[in-house]
Amino acid sequence: MKKVVKFGGSSLASAEQFKKVGAIISADESRVYVVPSAPGKRFPEDTKVTDMLLHVYETAKAGEDITEEMKAIKARYDEIITGLALKDFSLDKDFEEITKKLVENPQVDYAASRGEFLNGKIMAAYLGVEFIDAAEVIFFNAEGNLNSYKTEKVLSERLSKAPRAVVPGFYGLGKDGNVKTFSRGGSDVTGSIVAQASQADVYENWTDVSGFLVADPRIVPNPKPIKYITYRELRELSYMGASVLHEDAIFPVRNCGIPINIRNTNVPEDPGTWIVESTCQKQDYVVTGIAGKKDFCTIFISKAMMNSEIGFGRKVLQAFEENEISFEHMPSGIDTMTIVVHEDEFMHKEQRVVSAIHRLAKPDSVEIESGLALIAVVGRGMKSASGTAGKLFSALAKDGINIKMIDQGSSELNIIIGVRNKDFEPAIRAIYDTFIVDKKKN
Amino acid sequence: MKKVVKFGGSSLASAEQFKKVGAIISADESRVYVVPSAPGKRFPEDTKVTDMLLHVYETAKAGEDITEEMKAIKARYDEIITGLALKDFSLDKDFEEITKKLVENPQVDYAASRGEFLNGKIMAAYLGVEFIDAAEVIFFNAEGNLNSYKTEKVLSERLSKAPRAVVPGFYGLGKDGNVKTFSRGGSDVTGSIVAQASQADVYENWTDVSGFLVADPRIVPNPKPIKYITYRELRELSYMGASVLHEDAIFPVRNCGIPINIRNTNVPEDPGTWIVESTCQKQDYVVTGIAGKKDFCTIFISKAMMNSEIGFGRKVLQAFEENEISFEHMPSGIDTMTIVVHEDEFMHKEQRVVSAIHRLAKPDSVEIESGLALIAVVGRGMKSASGTAGKLFSALAKDGINIKMIDQGSSELNIIIGVRNKDFEPAIRAIYDTFIVDKKKN
Repeated sequence: MKKVVKFGGSSLASAEQFKKVGAIISADESRVYVVPSAPGKRFPEDTKVTDMLLHVYETAKAGEDITEEMKAIKARYDEIITGLALKDFSLDKDFEEITKKLVENPQVDYAASRGEFLNGKIMAAYLGVEFIDAAEVIFFNAEGNLNSYKTEKVLSERLSKAPRAVVPGFYGLGKDGNVKTFSRGGSDVTGSIVAQASQADVYENWTDVSGFLVADPRIVPNPKPIKYITYRELRELSYMGASVLHEDAIFPVRNCGIPINIRNTNVPEDPGTWIVESTCQKQDYVVTGIAGKKDFCTIFISKAMMNSEIGFGRKVLQAFEENEISFEHMPSGIDTMTIVVHEDEFMHKEQRVVSAIHRLAKPDSVEIESGLALIAVVGRGMKSASGTAGKLFSALAKDGINIKMIDQGSSELNIIIGVRNKDFEPAIRAIYDTFIVDKKKN
Repeated sequence: MKKVVKFGGSSLASAEQFKKVGAIISADESRVYVVPSAPGKRFPEDTKVTDMLLHVYETAKAGEDITEEMKAIKARYDEIITGLALKDFSLDKDFEEITKKLVENPQVDYAASRGEFLNGKIMAAYLGVEFIDAAEVIFFNAEGNLNSYKTEKVLSERLSKAPRAVVPGFYGLGKDGNVKTFSRGGSDVTGSIVAQASQADVYENWTDVSGFLVADPRIVPNPKPIKYITYRELRELSYMGASVLHEDAIFPVRNCGIPINIRNTNVPEDPGTWIVESTCQKQDYVVTGIAGKKDFCTIFISKAMMNSEIGFGRKVLQAFEENEISFEHMPSGIDTMTIVVHEDEFMHKEQRVVSAIHRLAKPDSVEIESGLALIAVVGRGMKSASGTAGKLFSALAKDGINIKMIDQGSSELNIIIGVRNKDFEPAIRAIYDTFIVDKKKN
């Protein structure tokens, strides 16, 4: 059993947090490779070290003195080093070198990446394991994307010689020989790459929450965590606005079937969320997650006998394509069809689209409405549980929520409904209450 | 108040039925224009006069003797004439002329139309009103379609001089000077044209049922009649397979806002069904009608990130257009899209369509499934009644019916659901029971 453990910024913001991390790692022999983030906020008003470094970069680029700013950053690390009582360890030399580089040739990616680099050094010293600079084992191609082939080759060879190691997250080496950071997903991506290269059994992603939540906590108070979620469900919830792992952080491990376990550093006894390819685990709820987005527009098109007119739908969609607008859904009735699009993409082009529809498809009428919210109710359990739709729509009706659109049938994994923007939060709460709170009735 | 009354074949199959019709007409002074069909079946094994005439045409065309066949037809009419005790009235001369024409120059439309022609003559004599040959007042253009302009002009002028009259249904005069029949809708179309030309207040269409039924009586035992239905609802139910009036029979009166009243000659006290443009009449049920069709195919297409790919939907639909296939619905999920098509149109072209989808849209996968049935639940009342969807899906779940597709949002008038062919009848019964039988729960 081999595990890669990635820790987020809040898990490594202070010596106290470092100790929790140390306890987590030493509690399980199989946690062999550690991917740390840069120190995050210690308290709400605190500044993340990465943001401090980005500010240093701006100062250096403006040709101003960075001494004081670098001192403040060093103080953050020294606080951790002192708190951990690390003997014979200092970052003095590293700070000297970083300061020198930033003054001589300020580079934004280099600056941003030093938070992870330095935190990795502390972590390696604290754990007494080898430190592997990500710039030596993770490579980008000329287009700025991960060079998976070279990275996997070099990284897996390097790890095969290091039974235990720390690899700082967030960066690697660019094609031009300079340090380069990941544009999105940050250290999550590094953890995923290390898990893949080391052929780990599990990729543990330690954060400050006990896994993903069934619904947005800003809408539903104290939503339940999700125990098991498939990649597919994750993708659907993420697409519909849930804040979960970025695609780029999932791809490397998904490709080789390594499950991801989202855990809480502050409550390590919580099992967290397992992200898996597929699972037979009994679910507590039929619904895995609820997510949604506001601000869609609908374009309602009617034309007598449209259903039997070959090419009608194609012509309508062409009007959107000509204006470079992607559409979300296209529910159709008898002689009617509705196109659902993002309001911000559509608004400034609406009249051009309407006239294109008239020119291409010659409809009887076209009507536009804004302020639609889409909600996806996602769950692999919905496939087998009959009555999900009935329960869902009864719940919304009970709360007086008018359903503007229903789209189901393309995937047995979700039902997508449209409601007015103002009904968005009440609808999510009603769905949550029905499927999660009133579980007995399920 | 002016009414046009059309009577179907079973309403005029015998002297006894004629008497019922006579009583209906004399019961209401405003029933001034009568449009009769040809005599229909008197009992289940009977032959319709029109079918007898079509057989005569075949015989005549083959150069064989039609004397005996014509005698049998004459016997049908004589039975009516005798039963009605019409004095100084005979169809002898008409039969001579028809026989002569059929022998000399057999024409199928002419032969088929004589049933209405002769029945109209009897009706006029029985009511003591003028007979107007439809060939003098209803005209077709060179393409074989109704010449509305000329027909309205000639017919309205003619009717303005006839305070009461009989105009036989089903035929008019072709551009070539020969009698021509309506291809579809038969006498219903004539009644509608007469109602329009006479600017009638009501078009009464007398049949052997007390109006349209909420559901197909072959599926639901003794379904309730529909009291009020809008043209739009009628169109939706008709499109989804309900046997109601043909479009061509509705168009003339719809265009000038004349309501249609479907009545039962055998139960004239029943109010029947009113077909109207719009109505405020209180409805007994939220659902106006339920109709559906079997044998659809679904083409399930998945592709990562398809939603944000501009033009993806258009490309998919183009694959169907290239193969001249119209599609019914297109429910979409996240990274998935399903196209619903008629099985008979799609079956023999499936591989060509699939390869066109691959060529044009480059999807990750395409899967085909057959045996889908579509059901439309139609009702103007659904717009305001919340909870319809919940009730609908709960009813289906209770009966263990798996919902393969839901499409709602393009029209507030209907919800379209997809179920397996085998669940078609049970689903319709479940929906009927929920919305019509369990009305108290509504």
